[in-house]
Amino acid sequence: MNENMQQYLDKAQVLIEALPYIQRFNRKIIVVKYGGSAMVDEDLKKQVIEDVTLLKLVGFKPIIVHGGGKEISKWVGKVGMEPQFINGLRVTDADTMEVAEMVLGKVNKSLVQHVEELGVRAIGISGKDGGLLRVDKKLSGGEDIGFVGEVKKVNADILYDLLEKDFLPIVCPVGMDDDFNTYNINADDAACAIARAVKAEKLAFLTDIEGVYKDPEDPKTLISELRVDEAQKLMADGYIGGGMLPKLQNCIDAIENGVSRVHILDGRIPHCLLLEIFTNRGIGTAILNGEESRYYHGE
Amino acid sequence: MNENMQQYLDKAQVLIEALPYIQRFNRKIIVVKYGGSAMVDEDLKKQVIEDVTLLKLVGFKPIIVHGGGKEISKWVGKVGMEPQFINGLRVTDADTMEVAEMVLGKVNKSLVQHVEELGVRAIGISGKDGGLLRVDKKLSGGEDIGFVGEVKKVNADILYDLLEKDFLPIVCPVGMDDDFNTYNINADDAACAIARAVKAEKLAFLTDIEGVYKDPEDPKTLISELRVDEAQKLMADGYIGGGMLPKLQNCIDAIENGVSRVHILDGRIPHCLLLEIFTNRGIGTAILNGEESRYYHGE
Amino acid sequence: MNENMQQYLDKAQVLIEALPYIQRFNRKIIVVKYGGSAMVDEDLKKQVIEDVTLLKLVGFKPIIVHGGGKEISKWVGKVGMEPQFINGLRVTDADTMEVAEMVLGKVNKSLVQHVEELGVRAIGISGKDGGLLRVDKKLSGGEDIGFVGEVKKVNADILYDLLEKDFLPIVCPVGMDDDFNTYNINADDAACAIARAVKAEKLAFLTDIEGVYKDPEDPKTLISELRVDEAQKLMADGYIGGGMLPKLQNCIDAIENGVSRVHILDGRIPHCLLLEIFTNRGIGTAILNGEESRYYHGE
Amino acid sequence: MNENMQQYLDKAQVLIEALPYIQRFNRKIIVVKYGGSAMVDEDLKKQVIEDVTLLKLVGFKPIIVHGGGKEISKWVGKVGMEPQFINGLRVTDADTMEVAEMVLGKVNKSLVQHVEELGVRAIGISGKDGGLLRVDKKLSGGEDIGFVGEVKKVNADILYDLLEKDFLPIVCPVGMDDDFNTYNINADDAACAIARAVKAEKLAFLTDIEGVYKDPEDPKTLISELRVDEAQKLMADGYIGGGMLPKLQNCIDAIENGVSRVHILDGRIPHCLLLEIFTNRGIGTAILNGEESRYYHGE
Amino acid sequence: MNENMQQYLDKAQVLIEALPYIQRFNRKIIVVKYGGSAMVDEDLKKQVIEDVTLLKLVGFKPIIVHGGGKEISKWVGKVGMEPQFINGLRVTDADTMEVAEMVLGKVNKSLVQHVEELGVRAIGISGKDGGLLRVDKKLSGGEDIGFVGEVKKVNADILYDLLEKDFLPIVCPVGMDDDFNTYNINADDAACAIARAVKAEKLAFLTDIEGVYKDPEDPKTLISELRVDEAQKLMADGYIGGGMLPKLQNCIDAIENGVSRVHILDGRIPHCLLLEIFTNRGIGTAILNGEESRYYHGE
Amino acid sequence: MNENMQQYLDKAQVLIEALPYIQRFNRKIIVVKYGGSAMVDEDLKKQVIEDVTLLKLVGFKPIIVHGGGKEISKWVGKVGMEPQFINGLRVTDADTMEVAEMVLGKVNKSLVQHVEELGVRAIGISGKDGGLLRVDKKLSGGEDIGFVGEVKKVNADILYDLLEKDFLPIVCPVGMDDDFNTYNINADDAACAIARAVKAEKLAFLTDIEGVYKDPEDPKTLISELRVDEAQKLMADGYIGGGMLPKLQNCIDAIENGVSRVHILDGRIPHCLLLEIFTNRGIGTAILNGEESRYYHGE
Repeated sequence: MNENMQQYLDKAQVLIEALPYIQRFNRKIIVVKYGGSAMVDEDLKKQVIEDVTLLKLVGFKPIIVHGGGKEISKWVGKVGMEPQFINGLRVTDADTMEVAEMVLGKVNKSLVQHVEELGVRAIGISGKDGGLLRVDKKLSGGEDIGFVGEVKKVNADILYDLLEKDFLPIVCPVGMDDDFNTYNINADDAACAIARAVKAEKLAFLTDIEGVYKDPEDPKTLISELRVDEAQKLMADGYIGGGMLPKLQNCIDAIENGVSRVHILDGRIPHCLLLEIFTNRGIGTAILNGEESRYYHGE
Repeated sequence: MNENMQQYLDKAQVLIEALPYIQRFNRKIIVVKYGGSAMVDEDLKKQVIEDVTLLKLVGFKPIIVHGGGKEISKWVGKVGMEPQFINGLRVTDADTMEVAEMVLGKVNKSLVQHVEELGVRAIGISGKDGGLLRVDKKLSGGEDIGFVGEVKKVNADILYDLLEKDFLPIVCPVGMDDDFNTYNINADDAACAIARAVKAEKLAFLTDIEGVYKDPEDPKTLISELRVDEAQKLMADGYIGGGMLPKLQNCIDAIENGVSRVHILDGRIPHCLLLEIFTNRGIGTAILNGEESRYYHGE
Repeated sequence: MNENMQQYLDKAQVLIEALPYIQRFNRKIIVVKYGGSAMVDEDLKKQVIEDVTLLKLVGFKPIIVHGGGKEISKWVGKVGMEPQFINGLRVTDADTMEVAEMVLGKVNKSLVQHVEELGVRAIGISGKDGGLLRVDKKLSGGEDIGFVGEVKKVNADILYDLLEKDFLPIVCPVGMDDDFNTYNINADDAACAIARAVKAEKLAFLTDIEGVYKDPEDPKTLISELRVDEAQKLMADGYIGGGMLPKLQNCIDAIENGVSRVHILDGRIPHCLLLEIFTNRGIGTAILNGEESRYYHGE
Repeated sequence: MNENMQQYLDKAQVLIEALPYIQRFNRKIIVVKYGGSAMVDEDLKKQVIEDVTLLKLVGFKPIIVHGGGKEISKWVGKVGMEPQFINGLRVTDADTMEVAEMVLGKVNKSLVQHVEELGVRAIGISGKDGGLLRVDKKLSGGEDIGFVGEVKKVNADILYDLLEKDFLPIVCPVGMDDDFNTYNINADDAACAIARAVKAEKLAFLTDIEGVYKDPEDPKTLISELRVDEAQKLMADGYIGGGMLPKLQNCIDAIENGVSRVHILDGRIPHCLLLEIFTNRGIGTAILNGEESRYYHGE
Repeated sequence: MNENMQQYLDKAQVLIEALPYIQRFNRKIIVVKYGGSAMVDEDLKKQVIEDVTLLKLVGFKPIIVHGGGKEISKWVGKVGMEPQFINGLRVTDADTMEVAEMVLGKVNKSLVQHVEELGVRAIGISGKDGGLLRVDKKLSGGEDIGFVGEVKKVNADILYDLLEKDFLPIVCPVGMDDDFNTYNINADDAACAIARAVKAEKLAFLTDIEGVYKDPEDPKTLISELRVDEAQKLMADGYIGGGMLPKLQNCIDAIENGVSRVHILDGRIPHCLLLEIFTNRGIGTAILNGEESRYYHGE
Repeated sequence: MNENMQQYLDKAQVLIEALPYIQRFNRKIIVVKYGGSAMVDEDLKKQVIEDVTLLKLVGFKPIIVHGGGKEISKWVGKVGMEPQFINGLRVTDADTMEVAEMVLGKVNKSLVQHVEELGVRAIGISGKDGGLLRVDKKLSGGEDIGFVGEVKKVNADILYDLLEKDFLPIVCPVGMDDDFNTYNINADDAACAIARAVKAEKLAFLTDIEGVYKDPEDPKTLISELRVDEAQKLMADGYIGGGMLPKLQNCIDAIENGVSRVHILDGRIPHCLLLEIFTNRGIGTAILNGEESRYYHGE
């Protein structure tokens, strides 16, 4: 057998190795929080879309929830708006919200475009469509910082209906309060709320860090596997700080509300989703409930 | 019976008079091209939404197709873009298209918001979602004026799927070409293409005119009812000019491709949709195929 | 805007005002006990049919249960039968039952006829069809007064099946006992049993009175809204007498078995059903369970 | 093996012999015109109901169409009505029609009662329900003889819907014209129209004769099997007279419109339906189209 | 009425007598353990197939579970294999298992063939198909006697799916352990496990004895009806011996796990299944739970 | 990025490359004729099963048709049967057929076992089940060589039903004639007939050769792509001989009857199915209809 042939056989072998994973997640819902570098870098973006599209095609039911962070700031500046602050916090006033919604909508349709290009049926919605995300105003340290919402109800039916019609739903984190005003929602929060509402098998956060560290200063302390009680202890002991704190809280929340497993992935690694799901190479940190091991052994 | 009571009975009578119309259009698709003043004036906007929502609730299947004209110009200015022209025609270059898509998205979600507020399940999509609108570049007098598309294929399945799941679809006229580039589409054209693709029972254009005139200078020459052959003769004889010409061509096109009836309505009249559909007061101009009379007599 | 136009706009306004009511009762079952003057007067009859048909068309699921009172007496006389009495009570012997069933059948098909005339699919059945109503003999003060039954089991499946096939079921109150003998059933009782069995959203009695009075002698004591405990107290305190006593008992029974709301309407008012359902003008007396207010305020 | 055992084995054998017939008619529609002596004699009535119920239970889809002849005359007399005549023909005026409809309704529900007693789900309808039978006025020799109709349209959907819900439909031959007036229909005509509309596998007339005779005076000339062309020749040659003429015309009509086979059975023979369908004993006359033989040989 | 006619009427009568039984078992699952003489004698075989096919056609849902006993021994000899024994027990080594599976497969397809010949859709499967039967190794008195399994899990879905698609499933008692090795299963055990898993209405064993005797030496002590507690007492008191002991244990097991009734039938009586089900002649012994009587009286 | 990581990324890349192929064959039926060395060599066998199982899991609808060639001969010998010959051809007499059916059944269940082991729902059937394959006796050069059949009718419904229930059907080539006798069918013929009947997207033959050669003596003349007309010309010109002649005729037959593409694959290459379907390395010979190119370029 020549070298060329061997190369093809190796390819076949990779596909065969994916078999047990394809089986395991068949018809399971996987919520992917898409953000960070993976959204800015065109190559990474293409790879994330490829990954999610592949998951859809081999029988999973992925849902993408995305943010739009840096783009929003760019456009707020572009239209010459004056940022407002309360106690040092940026305020999302009505004008800012208008721009934010426009930018998130643009990002949303751009993701639809990429998925459609790969031949899969996508639909881009916001939390307004079908009343998907109902919010309350979210105060920050007791202060009203404008149209920033926290999800109080997810109307999961709309997602089930779209999944049943074989759409890949792409959701941007905008919602309405009981008076039907528009609110911005933190994309992590939205992804977590949706994952809980649909009892997702997996919730994966694409981030710009390698995972959770015991000591953020020391890359060697990256934690591969974290049980809910361990995570709570880490938080209580003050090991977790900065932006990781609310993210980890979201993870624990999700696990405690029926999501089987949450992943904090390094979105800067190409195809990190596929690697996590289809190979035995663990990427980033997996948050599990108490009884499970990270790696699946048989059934 | 006191006066107060009489007033209530009159109300009941109005509902009863709606009976035959509700029956006639039960489960029929009605495409509404929404634009012009009815989109700018907040009261008219509210009324159009109420009308369409009522149509949905009493068993019709409305689809809204909307434009965003003046808003787009406003925002193009706001971000400080320089308009480009070719042979005196405004060019939709990539930057303009980006702003246009953002604005149309914003308008789209704002309509969703209003419909949801009335308790009906809406979903706002563009022609990108599910690959709804596939376009070719549209030249203007042989000139390339940028990302302006003409619909070459409507993927009607997406609309059927959303209607089946009881959504009221709200569509903004953006599509993709075969290379998945984004294009702006004239909203009249998009509405017409969609009405043809789903064999709509009715296609209604909300406009800023009273209807088609034999003599545009003379309001008394408003035409209430126009058969396709009559319309073609009027056009051939040069009676129709300006923006009405392509609109009328669209109407004829729709009728010839299976839409039962097209209406050019005066969107400045409150509840013009309800008046047209639920009363025997004809609003604007109805375009019919040859054999039909404007007013329904029995079945 | 001329006067004529204003009149049309008023009409549109009436339809728009119906929006929240149409939403509220969408796909809900409403059982209408049809009897009294509304069944004798041709105009009232036409109006009741129009009302129920409209309810059907805008998405409700009405079921009509009717009696045939005066017609039965007329025909019993016509065929020259001798009325029998036991302790002063009219006896429904086999011959009377035969005539009663014939007359009820005639009334039943005449209602079907009127509904069909309005273009809605009706089906007229008795409690024999599909074994809908199974009865036990009902004694009156311990006396056997013949083939008079009380409902012991409602086979609700038949109604669900007919509703699923989009029929408007019209039921006459005849049933069978365990030996498959034919029995007459009081129409109020039949309507109440059916409303309970299908957990109707509403049960409406069309009667020949304005509603429940605290003092039947004083029209000003008409009670608009009555909670179950209040009704029970009124009965215990002896305020309720005559034919109202069993009717009120039926109402309480229905509420306690899952019907959301019961109405005693004045069937002599044209379109009383529409007025009750689509306007904020309360007609007659509404029986509610303890926690609810009569008027719906938002959701 | 003792004699008793043999008797049981013989029974098993009868069931086994039914196998090919059960297979052949599985899920096929069989329209039974029920009338004549089989409707008057209580034993025969019970047997017909047993037969049809058995057909239903073993997987066929029977539909009963019944008349009410003698009962109608009896009740017309009972209410003291004066018969009217035009040119010697009895006229069905509005009063007669009212009584006829009542009597047919009574007969209808009595059949429902018997079928329900055997544990099968029956529903008794008239041609008014769901608009099943739409008629035109039928003149007799050019004379208007009142509310006598001929079927111009069968709304077969209602029957399909009821069959799908596993009902055994029992139809009485009353219909409405385009103005929704009530008409009496000859039961043979109604059965034939229904069989044609649902493309019945079989249409069986229960009559009071043994079948079609070549010479009505000579019982030995009973025809067991008659092809359409033979039947037409017999009629053309004047062999067929009296009530048989329209009946035979109906049979030919049915065959020519998609009914596979029509039977004129002697309803005075107990279980004539079962005998015809489950044994190789031919009862009465079978009308076939040209290519078939009466007896099924294999498939 | 001549003698010939009488004979036909008698046949009709037999069919009519089957009515209540057909009703009772409509859409109920009946598991038939097929074995013994009824599998060897060609006439009996034909009759069993006819019986089961008839059950299928009149609306029951039979499942056949068969053994292959004598055929296996014959082929084991034919291929010249040496029987192995442990402590006097025949061992099912891998080679024996291979032959056994081949022979059971042959028997299985031969039954399919017979059912198909009667025009009914059969499908022959083993416990391997769809993972129907998962087993553990069964020791005999603590000894490993090879690939003999006891059922630990029945994947009933496969049977429901095949029944839904209108197949008559024919199952041979071969299964797999958790390592996907092939095992032989006692056919009685397999039938019992399947009947329990699908909550069969009936489980019928075709055997070569008349039923359960109080005194096996005395045919007059045949027990027609046996309640579970009586059966347990008989076993405890040592009345039951030999092959009957595990069979009776299986019967009790089935009853205690949701099977309504178990029959030990004499498969040597032609059409014993039909006789048991369609006549009031009890064949063999019926095992019941405590509250029921053997014969059905009304409902 | 370290070497280890690169290896994982390469794996992800292989999965991504499979995307367009997964899309193309989503829900398409692929018939695999399984035979030759791939059935004898345990490693190859495992790989074929893995391939087909993967196809199933990623959304294709594979059907396996297998032979049993060498095993049959082995067992015919084992039971000491004397081969019969007519004009030098081996005769499949009843005894041989019995052994052949047993062996094919054993092979069939062994394949089921392997697929189940990989967690996919398999069902092993023969052409008898559900009457899948109806045959006529096939003569060889005019001679009756026993129970060798050629397919005259495929009852494709059984396959559609099993696919709908998510089974992977595994078919052994045994069928019945109109008298329900058992016949052996050439597995190539059976696969071809089945592929035609279900209008398979692909029919793949696993063989022991590399493909079709222009000159069988010269390996360099292997033909990668062959249009139907070219194939016919090759056959007419005498280039094709031996066992390839009927196989090629089968391929042409399949293409001409609606199968999109037929492959003659070298079953001795590990994972040849995956390589053919998921990579751009062509394995063996592809038979196409006139208009297509071998390699898919876009859509």
